[in-house]
Amino acid sequence: MTQTIIDVKSKIRDVVDFPKQGIIFRDITTALKAPETLKVMIDYLCDQFKDVKIDYIAGIESRGFIFGMPMAYKLDAGFVPIRKPNKLPAATYSEEYALEYGTDKIEVHKDAFPEGANVLIVDDLLATGGTAEAACKLVKKTGANLVGIAFLIELEALKGREKLTDSPRTVSMLKY
Amino acid sequence: MTQTIIDVKSKIRDVVDFPKQGIIFRDITTALKAPETLKVMIDYLCDQFKDVKIDYIAGIESRGFIFGMPMAYKLDAGFVPIRKPNKLPAATYSEEYALEYGTDKIEVHKDAFPEGANVLIVDDLLATGGTAEAACKLVKKTGANLVGIAFLIELEALKGREKLTDSPRTVSMLKY
Repeated sequence: MTQTIIDVKSKIRDVVDFPKQGIIFRDITTALKAPETLKVMIDYLCDQFKDVKIDYIAGIESRGFIFGMPMAYKLDAGFVPIRKPNKLPAATYSEEYALEYGTDKIEVHKDAFPEGANVLIVDDLLATGGTAEAACKLVKKTGANLVGIAFLIELEALKGREKLTDSPRTVSMLKY
Repeated sequence: MTQTIIDVKSKIRDVVDFPKQGIIFRDITTALKAPETLKVMIDYLCDQFKDVKIDYIAGIESRGFIFGMPMAYKLDAGFVPIRKPNKLPAATYSEEYALEYGTDKIEVHKDAFPEGANVLIVDDLLATGGTAEAACKLVKKTGANLVGIAFLIELEALKGREKLTDSPRTVSMLKY
């Protein structure tokens, strides 16, 4: 691990038994409130795709907004929110995904991207991969070109990465 | 109105009867997906506070994350999320506010800011001002110094600004 990654990991707060017993929650708020760490996280994620022209960042609600928007600002890209149901006001595509109990849905505006535009999906955390897999399908439905997905954190034991077969490049900064 | 503001307003999509009949929803997604417009919005909001050292941007979930994070990135500030209940993992302060029917709550980590730090609250929309008023109270509870609030859009007829007596400077880019 590079020193940069060790430094950022040291800013992530581990909260035991949140949101329920037996879970170690990786709290990113302690990293976001440190200005240098904030900058390093955004710059690192952007750098992983510096060989590709990114036209749009698609951020998954709501912590994907946190990382996706400054990446769009830095890369001179547009930003497109992928949202929970009934939040987007115009016509949408939607995709269902499995939760521990039941299912949930995410949506994107049908007119979010021009045909063939290069889109990078961004979220804070790759766990089981259900939401990210649905986000890939949504981007493909619009006719855009998915160039990859960037996560701040990946929980490797949950093997979420294996679900992301639609993503040509899946990148995470901090592995646990 | 300056040309910049006219240009950004032309990128906001008006969606009639969303989320319910009689409402004109100001859809920011069409502005966010235009890279130049995204940049102009963020830079304009930052410029309104260029005479103050901003230590932290506090973004209100979830569209305050969209504007607040790139502002933090640009201003070399830390970012602190103000979230809906039970989302923040460590000890929080919370504030209730009135909705059309019933009440809701927002929360911030108790240790979010050091005592006396300069904090700017950011959200996308000032409507009746209930959420923003609660956010001001939250920041004050932590012992930080509230320097102001920045909104992309203000619905002037709803007079939300009058509720924000705790904010020394309330700024909005687009007035309707």
